[in-house]
Amino acid sequence: MEFDTIAAISTPMGEGAIAIVRLSGDDAFTIADRVYRSGGKQLQSVPSHTIHYGHIVDPKTDETIEEVMVSVMKGPKTFTREDVVEINCHGGVVSVNRVLQLLLREGARLAEPGEFTKRAFLNGRIDLSQAEAVMDLIRAKTDRAMSVAMNQMQGRLSRLVQSLRQEILEILAQVEVNIDYPEYDDVEEMTLNMMMEKSQYVRDEIEKLLRTSEQGKILREGLSTVIIGRPNVGKSSLLNSLVQENKAIVTDIPGTTRDVIEEYVNVRGVPLKLVDTAGIRETEDIVERIGVERSRQVLKEADLILLVLNHGEELSDEDRRLFEAVTGMDVIVIVNKTDLDQAIDLDEVKQLSGDHKLVTTSLLKEQGVDELEESIASLFFDGSVDLGDGTYVSNSRHIALLHQALQAIEEAIQGAEMGTPVDMVQIDLRRTWEILGEMIGDTVQESLIDQLFSQFCLGK
Amino acid sequence: MEFDTIAAISTPMGEGAIAIVRLSGDDAFTIADRVYRSGGKQLQSVPSHTIHYGHIVDPKTDETIEEVMVSVMKGPKTFTREDVVEINCHGGVVSVNRVLQLLLREGARLAEPGEFTKRAFLNGRIDLSQAEAVMDLIRAKTDRAMSVAMNQMQGRLSRLVQSLRQEILEILAQVEVNIDYPEYDDVEEMTLNMMMEKSQYVRDEIEKLLRTSEQGKILREGLSTVIIGRPNVGKSSLLNSLVQENKAIVTDIPGTTRDVIEEYVNVRGVPLKLVDTAGIRETEDIVERIGVERSRQVLKEADLILLVLNHGEELSDEDRRLFEAVTGMDVIVIVNKTDLDQAIDLDEVKQLSGDHKLVTTSLLKEQGVDELEESIASLFFDGSVDLGDGTYVSNSRHIALLHQALQAIEEAIQGAEMGTPVDMVQIDLRRTWEILGEMIGDTVQESLIDQLFSQFCLGK
Repeated sequence: MEFDTIAAISTPMGEGAIAIVRLSGDDAFTIADRVYRSGGKQLQSVPSHTIHYGHIVDPKTDETIEEVMVSVMKGPKTFTREDVVEINCHGGVVSVNRVLQLLLREGARLAEPGEFTKRAFLNGRIDLSQAEAVMDLIRAKTDRAMSVAMNQMQGRLSRLVQSLRQEILEILAQVEVNIDYPEYDDVEEMTLNMMMEKSQYVRDEIEKLLRTSEQGKILREGLSTVIIGRPNVGKSSLLNSLVQENKAIVTDIPGTTRDVIEEYVNVRGVPLKLVDTAGIRETEDIVERIGVERSRQVLKEADLILLVLNHGEELSDEDRRLFEAVTGMDVIVIVNKTDLDQAIDLDEVKQLSGDHKLVTTSLLKEQGVDELEESIASLFFDGSVDLGDGTYVSNSRHIALLHQALQAIEEAIQGAEMGTPVDMVQIDLRRTWEILGEMIGDTVQESLIDQLFSQFCLGK
Repeated sequence: MEFDTIAAISTPMGEGAIAIVRLSGDDAFTIADRVYRSGGKQLQSVPSHTIHYGHIVDPKTDETIEEVMVSVMKGPKTFTREDVVEINCHGGVVSVNRVLQLLLREGARLAEPGEFTKRAFLNGRIDLSQAEAVMDLIRAKTDRAMSVAMNQMQGRLSRLVQSLRQEILEILAQVEVNIDYPEYDDVEEMTLNMMMEKSQYVRDEIEKLLRTSEQGKILREGLSTVIIGRPNVGKSSLLNSLVQENKAIVTDIPGTTRDVIEEYVNVRGVPLKLVDTAGIRETEDIVERIGVERSRQVLKEADLILLVLNHGEELSDEDRRLFEAVTGMDVIVIVNKTDLDQAIDLDEVKQLSGDHKLVTTSLLKEQGVDELEESIASLFFDGSVDLGDGTYVSNSRHIALLHQALQAIEEAIQGAEMGTPVDMVQIDLRRTWEILGEMIGDTVQESLIDQLFSQFCLGK
């Protein structure tokens, strides 16, 4: 395929030691040569995969913009499979921007977010699920999330999906053979039986994949966690304790300014996304707002509720209302301040807690935190399934497609069971094959591709 | 020189397309080889300045950490003059950290801030003023600041300082010649005259350099700007207008978390550092705090005061107190809200303003902003001196040294004028030579070097 030449800053914005401006496309070398000066050296005539010292000079004014190291990589052995030039600058915001502006003036087009990876996909170097894993790898909050993304990027999920598609193709081929060369009279029934059996295998495999998805999603997106409790039960202490014990991961939300910051803590490999922590820190007022619709919404969207009670005070109606508000959710009840004399009715707490895990802590004396963390990890990863090699389905799009594929294959199975004509069952099988194809980008619409890659960071 | 092998992440922290882990030192290749996998390829045996695809694998667990492109550069043609390996990762925070941790485990030491550049200096690739320019380039807030840093990095300031030092050496040599081979009887007087004349030339050059320093400092560090005025005169509108018209430059303060954020706007090449903007935005309360000592301190440290008045209201005693508070400072008086009927006594405003520039605006109707920006730019750069080639002295350390050098050379001149013995004058000249040497790191203490480079970013 042939595309125009795109350019973007591929390192995070900010002061750093190195910033990279990346060019990709047929004219990458000629455009770079217009602004690169190093004696008479021409980047288009140097060997591939070599590095060159020089300066970026504005050809109109002869002003030197930057001192650079330029990496020259000829396609197809590059990230995009196209000719790629990477200009390593001293990491100044202004000078890097000047270099980029110069390249745009000299014929490059500003890359859209994810456009480099999109080209890697369109040029056939990686499939769609691998491309999505690139982004997951960048956004990974913990080592485990990173491993999942890495596995996916290396194509493990793709190969699983491919093998299922292959399975379906083989069923369809077998059907054709059976019908064209019937050995027995009851060919129709035989064929339906074969379709049913093999489809059941595919269904089981899809279900197995889907079973990894809850953990996969948590690893990828973090466990949306809300700490609730009356004022002064120790919500801030709990937050600080989680943040201190485990390194806090502060990230920008892509595409926004730094106004919006989410906080993650890594609890035994489980990324906890602490919701509304600012509110807790500043005002301890989440309880007061518990009646408000918006707060109930926050609770509803949470994956995990940490409900904090005070060991040194009697249960209040407010406490009881909190239990009501979190009915049916994943809750860990924390009886804090065991350093105070007991005033709380633990029997009532146990009764209110029901099936919820109950942990006692003294955050002041740093007691019980280990047990709490253990509870969090085991609540979501005990008896957790993965596919043996660390492959999880983690992406919402994949999960949705797998659900669709599951439905399609079940329709095929039902059809076969009910003795529906073979060609009707074939349709369901072919649909399953197509849906699975969408996961890896084999049978996918252009608009979807555009939308998918637009979620990437700039310069990737 | 020989040093141990250091490693650091050289791109800004955050989600980006590419992150770089840099290694420098004698063992850079062998350490990298311990974690790099690409068939059987060994980085230590590939040609210098080449790029290689592969994976970073934990040799203990065989876990694949990252898919990477590795740049191999053999000393001395590298940033540090040592063997350098740059590992280009997908820009994920977690995976990049894992790669760094692995390198540290396998024998590298975590680099201190600025240590790569320090090695470039210690290994003689650049002098001290060039090293300092590297950091200035990274921190540059505007194109002009960038050019100044670029010039300094390319050694223009160094060459100027070197030529002055050469001048002094020649005086000293001439003195020796005169004394050893006296042609005339009045050799002592002749020599003193020669010393005086030539020293005056050196002094004039130092003064010329110092005259660039005010602008140089502004370009480098930004113009610390405070907006003051009573509530509701339009301070927030002014701030927003400056930020909108000119791209805001938001930067992290190095070494801190993102809690502290400064805002810069680029007004016609002059970087305005808006002080206490948060206060203005949130509470409009700087006036209320004007009596407070701390606020007076903020005013005192400001380079520029924007004093805003309301065209539609009479002058109040508060307004008059503001004028008193900023006596003797660089002030631009802004009469805003010309869209309202005039109630302010413009004659009194003019009288209060004295020599201060006076601008009328209607920020609501976007009028007068151009004139305001023009005033800001001309206040600091009208009739501005530079050394013809964009060389400014911008660094506080350099400015302090130039002042010391100026004092030393003036003592030499005075000595010569007063007929002090030649060898006494020689001492002052030699001292001037040494002080100038400190600018470029020729005669500088190790502790100073450590302190200087510690201000750099990590990974540079």
